[in-house]
Amino acid sequence: MSDPLAIIGGAGAGLGQTLMRVFSQNGYTSVGLNRSIPDAAAGTTHAVDLSDPAQTAQTVSDLIQTLGAPKLVVHNAAKLVIGGFEDTTNADFEATWRAMVLSAVNLARSVLPAMVEDGGGTFIVSGATASLRGGRNFAAFASAKAGLRALTQSLAREYGPQGIHVVHVVLDGIVDTNVSRALHKMDPARMIKPADIARTYLALADQPRSTWTHELDLRPMGEGF
Amino acid sequence: MSDPLAIIGGAGAGLGQTLMRVFSQNGYTSVGLNRSIPDAAAGTTHAVDLSDPAQTAQTVSDLIQTLGAPKLVVHNAAKLVIGGFEDTTNADFEATWRAMVLSAVNLARSVLPAMVEDGGGTFIVSGATASLRGGRNFAAFASAKAGLRALTQSLAREYGPQGIHVVHVVLDGIVDTNVSRALHKMDPARMIKPADIARTYLALADQPRSTWTHELDLRPMGEGF
Amino acid sequence: MSDPLAIIGGAGAGLGQTLMRVFSQNGYTSVGLNRSIPDAAAGTTHAVDLSDPAQTAQTVSDLIQTLGAPKLVVHNAAKLVIGGFEDTTNADFEATWRAMVLSAVNLARSVLPAMVEDGGGTFIVSGATASLRGGRNFAAFASAKAGLRALTQSLAREYGPQGIHVVHVVLDGIVDTNVSRALHKMDPARMIKPADIARTYLALADQPRSTWTHELDLRPMGEGF
Amino acid sequence: MSDPLAIIGGAGAGLGQTLMRVFSQNGYTSVGLNRSIPDAAAGTTHAVDLSDPAQTAQTVSDLIQTLGAPKLVVHNAAKLVIGGFEDTTNADFEATWRAMVLSAVNLARSVLPAMVEDGGGTFIVSGATASLRGGRNFAAFASAKAGLRALTQSLAREYGPQGIHVVHVVLDGIVDTNVSRALHKMDPARMIKPADIARTYLALADQPRSTWTHELDLRPMGEGF
Repeated sequence: MSDPLAIIGGAGAGLGQTLMRVFSQNGYTSVGLNRSIPDAAAGTTHAVDLSDPAQTAQTVSDLIQTLGAPKLVVHNAAKLVIGGFEDTTNADFEATWRAMVLSAVNLARSVLPAMVEDGGGTFIVSGATASLRGGRNFAAFASAKAGLRALTQSLAREYGPQGIHVVHVVLDGIVDTNVSRALHKMDPARMIKPADIARTYLALADQPRSTWTHELDLRPMGEGF
Repeated sequence: MSDPLAIIGGAGAGLGQTLMRVFSQNGYTSVGLNRSIPDAAAGTTHAVDLSDPAQTAQTVSDLIQTLGAPKLVVHNAAKLVIGGFEDTTNADFEATWRAMVLSAVNLARSVLPAMVEDGGGTFIVSGATASLRGGRNFAAFASAKAGLRALTQSLAREYGPQGIHVVHVVLDGIVDTNVSRALHKMDPARMIKPADIARTYLALADQPRSTWTHELDLRPMGEGF
Repeated sequence: MSDPLAIIGGAGAGLGQTLMRVFSQNGYTSVGLNRSIPDAAAGTTHAVDLSDPAQTAQTVSDLIQTLGAPKLVVHNAAKLVIGGFEDTTNADFEATWRAMVLSAVNLARSVLPAMVEDGGGTFIVSGATASLRGGRNFAAFASAKAGLRALTQSLAREYGPQGIHVVHVVLDGIVDTNVSRALHKMDPARMIKPADIARTYLALADQPRSTWTHELDLRPMGEGF
Repeated sequence: MSDPLAIIGGAGAGLGQTLMRVFSQNGYTSVGLNRSIPDAAAGTTHAVDLSDPAQTAQTVSDLIQTLGAPKLVVHNAAKLVIGGFEDTTNADFEATWRAMVLSAVNLARSVLPAMVEDGGGTFIVSGATASLRGGRNFAAFASAKAGLRALTQSLAREYGPQGIHVVHVVLDGIVDTNVSRALHKMDPARMIKPADIARTYLALADQPRSTWTHELDLRPMGEGF
């Protein structure tokens, strides 16, 4: 029997590629979907605009035909916009919504029926502090992340009884990537390690049906909350 | 001195027109903005598509030039979509987002700078049960309502220190309108009366700066929660 | 017909006496219950230890026999303990629980049956920031305030269908009293005014049965949240 | 080097003994503390009334002197009271508070200083649906569980920066024990399996410092929420 398939929607050079690498090291066949293919990809990554329903449906349908239904799907696509309300354009609001809510709709639509037919699986959504709280300077980002969280809850309540474990993970801190190190200039010891996130996602995918988690937070020791 | 201006964005035949009527009875000049002008409008209602930024900006700018900055603005535009995830189209997701989140962005953009310059005012957003909870069959509606709530929080945190009282009201029940009576066939005694909502909104607009409410729920006696 | 009765449990020199005064100015007969009788009480205040069930039951029973069932009851008793966990004694934990949870149990027990029989009324509980969040240095206070909030929710769900409007108010800021002015040395303009809280409580007591609020926050303009 | 010590406060025949057994199978020396010693205990269980501070301090101090500071401590003591408010006595309110809040205070007090000195560890608290929601018929239980949750948050915020990972787990369903099977007569397939809870607790104790969870829910597939 072949390894179970893991699909990572939003497989950029930071967290997404690490999820792929760690999942592959732990028995999954990892396939990434990303707007662009990063250098040194940790497995097969397809160039897909997840906000485009036809592209997403076609790519995932091909994958499933070849590799079978996925056992683990992660929605990890994000677009960060920070700024005061007057400096945040309508294009910013629409772009964050497309990048986070619409892409999750398209990804869910492309995998859930096959997963249900296959008898189950896990669908994990990466959230953020802003998923729970609309802070100053985060009008667009928080609005999209909160919308994504509500979508995730709806999916959990509809697909849970059909065997799909839907999880929302609140990443409450700065994820340690090359981009965030350059941007935040903070002590890496106070950042969330992508490989540690990956291990939590693996544990969530392994939860037996008597103990499913729908929501949990992950933050570095010492991060205020 | 003329009466203070109240702008109601989303002034349909149900709750919106009642807000206009009760505000007018209580010392406000009420102006409604609505996609279409309902029969027997309770004051001036302009035909505006709030999801269109240019239309909204132009109409509100004209209003402010004539009547001054509003003291009370209500975002009450809503679009209800109910159905399983597979039956909810991407067009549904986009339409609910445009009708609730983007329209609030446009309305806020058109009034907040003038209100700040004028020394303050109240901006109230009508939420729903789904603003707090993504239920089964409410993927599109809950996603948009939760996004609207996070937007409202961001505005409260940015504009509160500038004198704008931003409020999110969770209408946790069925609002009693002709449409909902036909749809739900429930005992009207168990529905939320639009005129009672209007009175709560007036009280929120009157809260002194030492005691601002950001969020409250309104539900009929006996409604489960 | 005589004025409706308002009972204020926790009627100290700060918020409690102001509630009594403002309620009296607005058509209520106000009666306070407090461990000790403050100077210049704003109406009849009885010396009662609300954490003592027999004392509370006897005093309130006598009141109801004379004045009828109350239409408005406020639980406003509080005991503040601030400090690190190791410096917070078990006596502190028990004292905060008795002062806030047990006193509310006793007050509720003494008034609710008569209010139900009388056809309804409003029971308001004064909460705090700590009701929603267990902060560092607030282990005892937050634990008791969160317990009080859960009790209030249970009462709302049990007694709401019987006509009792049960409300939890989160006072998210420093209430402006002589004690807090001396303690916090903050700008009084940034504090919550007791008279403004009283006006909100009156408005809650006046909410019609189609629009009951169960929980709302009150904070001064500019207070972070 | 000897196995790390796990202390389970509340080690009755149901969940507590299973935690001990699974922890022992995974490299821990498990020690239970319980009001009475169950038959067929899965390791050393001491008879301790956790609501008694002196007894708790003495027993845990002896344990630490012999076995060193614990790496994992679970607070799992609970007392269920269900009933309408008028049928719930003040003794019920006090007993639930002592069994859940005061016992957690005593357990935390007895282990945290040694754990901090030892360089860290994990402190897990078992919560319930009622920790988040004060339902009808749960006034006493929910009040105590909500108080316990707030205490847990305070401990997390104070002790997290000192290396102690404090976690609150919401067990949102019926735990499958002999007692609950007799009480609820529900399909065991819809109950939470104690051994599955134990595995989640082990995973939480293993979370690296870059990704600590403070709160998560566990519920059986198909359980409504």
